[in-house]
Amino acid sequence: MTTTATYTVKGMTCGHCVSSVKEEVGEVPGVTGVEVDLPTGLVTVQGEGPLDGAAITAAVKEAGYEVVSA
Amino acid sequence: MTTTATYTVKGMTCGHCVSSVKEEVGEVPGVTGVEVDLPTGLVTVQGEGPLDGAAITAAVKEAGYEVVSA
Repeated sequence: MTTTATYTVKGMTCGHCVSSVKEEVGEVPGVTGVEVDLPTGLVTVQGEGPLDGAAITAAVKEAGYEVVSA
Repeated sequence: MTTTATYTVKGMTCGHCVSSVKEEVGEVPGVTGVEVDLPTGLVTVQGEGPLDGAAITAAVKEAGYEVVSA
């Protein structure tokens, strides 16, 4: 089963920020892909099986940003 | 002889950008210190002996940004 979830993340300003979010979220167990649209802050996460939303939100915070809607 | 030069750099938006500029400019021969003020884009470079302005401008460009005044 492939799952896709989207999150709106606040605070990303440049490609370095995008890389940080991709790296941290990509390390969450079950996550197989992360795409980020910088202008809108939209983060699209793909995974095999159910995604752990709390872990993804925590990973975004670890990168230094904030999930404002999920 | 200690030399200090300041440059105004355009395009830095976050701490990652600051780190990139510090790293690249810090690798220029003769440079002993680099300070960056993100809100103003002011980059202060210290060195022993004369500083190679062209090399510093090139290092900023290598990091992905632009010197708009020196």
